[in-house]
Amino acid sequence: MAWNRVAVVGGGLIHFGELFSSSYEQMARGALDAAMGSVDSGFEPHQIEAIVVATQRGSLWGQEGIGGNTIPSALGISGVPCTRVENACPSGADAFRIAAMIVASGVHDLVLVIGVEKMRDKSTEEGLLSRAAAGHPVYTRGETAPVLFAPFATRHMHEFGTTAEMLAAVAVKNHHNGTLDPYAHFQSEITTEQVLASPTVCQPLRLLDCCPQTDGAAAIILASQDRARSLTKNPVWVAGFGMGTDHPYLHEKSNFTSLPATVSAAKRAYEMAGVRPNEIDVAEVHDCFTITEILDIEDLGFYEKGKGGPAALEGETAISGRIPINPSGGLLAKGHPIGATGVAQLVECWWQLRGEAGDRQVEINNGYALQHNVGGRGSGVSVVNILTSRNDN
Amino acid sequence: MAWNRVAVVGGGLIHFGELFSSSYEQMARGALDAAMGSVDSGFEPHQIEAIVVATQRGSLWGQEGIGGNTIPSALGISGVPCTRVENACPSGADAFRIAAMIVASGVHDLVLVIGVEKMRDKSTEEGLLSRAAAGHPVYTRGETAPVLFAPFATRHMHEFGTTAEMLAAVAVKNHHNGTLDPYAHFQSEITTEQVLASPTVCQPLRLLDCCPQTDGAAAIILASQDRARSLTKNPVWVAGFGMGTDHPYLHEKSNFTSLPATVSAAKRAYEMAGVRPNEIDVAEVHDCFTITEILDIEDLGFYEKGKGGPAALEGETAISGRIPINPSGGLLAKGHPIGATGVAQLVECWWQLRGEAGDRQVEINNGYALQHNVGGRGSGVSVVNILTSRNDN
Repeated sequence: MAWNRVAVVGGGLIHFGELFSSSYEQMARGALDAAMGSVDSGFEPHQIEAIVVATQRGSLWGQEGIGGNTIPSALGISGVPCTRVENACPSGADAFRIAAMIVASGVHDLVLVIGVEKMRDKSTEEGLLSRAAAGHPVYTRGETAPVLFAPFATRHMHEFGTTAEMLAAVAVKNHHNGTLDPYAHFQSEITTEQVLASPTVCQPLRLLDCCPQTDGAAAIILASQDRARSLTKNPVWVAGFGMGTDHPYLHEKSNFTSLPATVSAAKRAYEMAGVRPNEIDVAEVHDCFTITEILDIEDLGFYEKGKGGPAALEGETAISGRIPINPSGGLLAKGHPIGATGVAQLVECWWQLRGEAGDRQVEINNGYALQHNVGGRGSGVSVVNILTSRNDN
Repeated sequence: MAWNRVAVVGGGLIHFGELFSSSYEQMARGALDAAMGSVDSGFEPHQIEAIVVATQRGSLWGQEGIGGNTIPSALGISGVPCTRVENACPSGADAFRIAAMIVASGVHDLVLVIGVEKMRDKSTEEGLLSRAAAGHPVYTRGETAPVLFAPFATRHMHEFGTTAEMLAAVAVKNHHNGTLDPYAHFQSEITTEQVLASPTVCQPLRLLDCCPQTDGAAAIILASQDRARSLTKNPVWVAGFGMGTDHPYLHEKSNFTSLPATVSAAKRAYEMAGVRPNEIDVAEVHDCFTITEILDIEDLGFYEKGKGGPAALEGETAISGRIPINPSGGLLAKGHPIGATGVAQLVECWWQLRGEAGDRQVEINNGYALQHNVGGRGSGVSVVNILTSRNDN
């Protein structure tokens, strides 16, 4: 495939958490400032030629859903083209993929990807997730996200002997990683006993098997190969990406131990990047629930189906393990501000590949990092992005 | 600018109107079928490599706003990547622009753009437009779309002597054009007297100065130059496009006689296409209100500022006029199903350039057609796309 190389030249995020005192626009501005500050050479906002903003729901605008055209003005660069991409939980990952194609097309040389989400300003009843199925003819009240993922845990346990302790090991690891990440919503260690003693949300998922609702924003600056040379001496490249979709309803699923959207997204991304799963040094994957991380590491090809639980229990996915998964703390500890989540994961991958991840730095051998989200009703959409520090990819 | 040429190889839409008996997915499928049927050579849905869907609000999903991941399954091509683009009234135009860049990037050779919107299934209080400002800190109840555009009419009349008869001439022309368009929501002639006698919605805008709320869907198939050769002997090319943004609040506007987002979108599109306004043969522009079409034809460079009203009154923008504007009937008569609107305008441009517009065919001299939307709070975002039948562009 003909492909003009695209570089990540900057990235940053704000401290995720309950940000009642920050507006949607202030959060976006904070992420942009962080990303600009990370660019090796001098960088000014007016250099930005286009913006792709990922917001699942624009909170400032009530129920409206518009995030796009408020952003350039809020960033002080009114006039710049700005497109909102919405794709459920992979919104941020998809915005990155679209932005990479915009740069590769030759139309714009410098594109800002910004993910921002306000999750906490509304009451539980009015909140984003509780309204996600409002008025829907199939999904009715009570079919919240835990309800949609619990059957996967039940079936995975039944078929492969996955245990509650294996699920808990994912939570314990990611909360540990969160203590090493200054941007994480939660920064305290938890124990297996605490996970197993936490209240059941939807059998077999307990409270500490679930990610929190979090406000946050993250930004990445993409540049064409020529432009990247003047902005950084240490570029990271977009090696490949892929999206997969699946039937959006649970009653259409052929099984409950795999998410086909992830499998097809990964297949496309690996093919485009020309890499195999065992060449990935580190991965930020979608752990909205502990079972999701186990499904992910199998569906992404890091482990055979059914082996994800034991791998988690045996520490293979820890920062010092065979394949470090979610060194940032993941959605479970860093948080899941929907539009921002994928962009923040990509910032973590960028830091890891540049050796700038501090106490949570993993060992980089092959120079590849993978980012993954899955979401939407029935986990019907997934995006995988692969970054590389190799100049020969 | 390096740019791989992108061709429009198919396009179609469903009859716009109050489609209470069709679901969101059925409407999308109808548009896809129409577009596929228009491709010169045999075309099957499985050839589609990626989808960009424009939906301002996914009606089937209640207040959720997700339209993306239901679409591939509904079209019978589950698995295909699908990205939802939302950008207020220019959602469809922006989806087309993004899809063109995806093809130009070399990542995908055949991309479906589909715009679909359900506007009428909800009560007035629950409806899309009445909720657009819900919870917003600046825009409060009562600040509906007519309220946002009326000051532009008032000021345009004050500064340039634009009259109610000139506004009415836009409505009379576009409703006439609607009688020639089998896909239009309204297909009856109206008279100047009827416009002037219709009830005031927001001074000086009357009922027949306003577009209706309409359900609809439209689709376009884009292909790389190589792929286009095998699909059509009569390709139309993407010559250029541009987006502009502006401050989203009325209190930030420097004047009320021009929409800066349109001006900058047009500048970018003309530069990319290498054409001047007087080389455009036909334009589909955003006439959500009669005053908007007058602002548009000035901001797009077809007329000097202040001359748009007289041009409408004198018939210069009729199908047989100097610069035919909205031969399809425009938003005023064809309707304005938000996500579908821009895509449907582009289908009309495609038909016009191919000489397939039937009774509403305009004279094509230079081989250029322009499509335009403007929208969002304070008309803060605009997209212009330019198509050409010239093989040398």
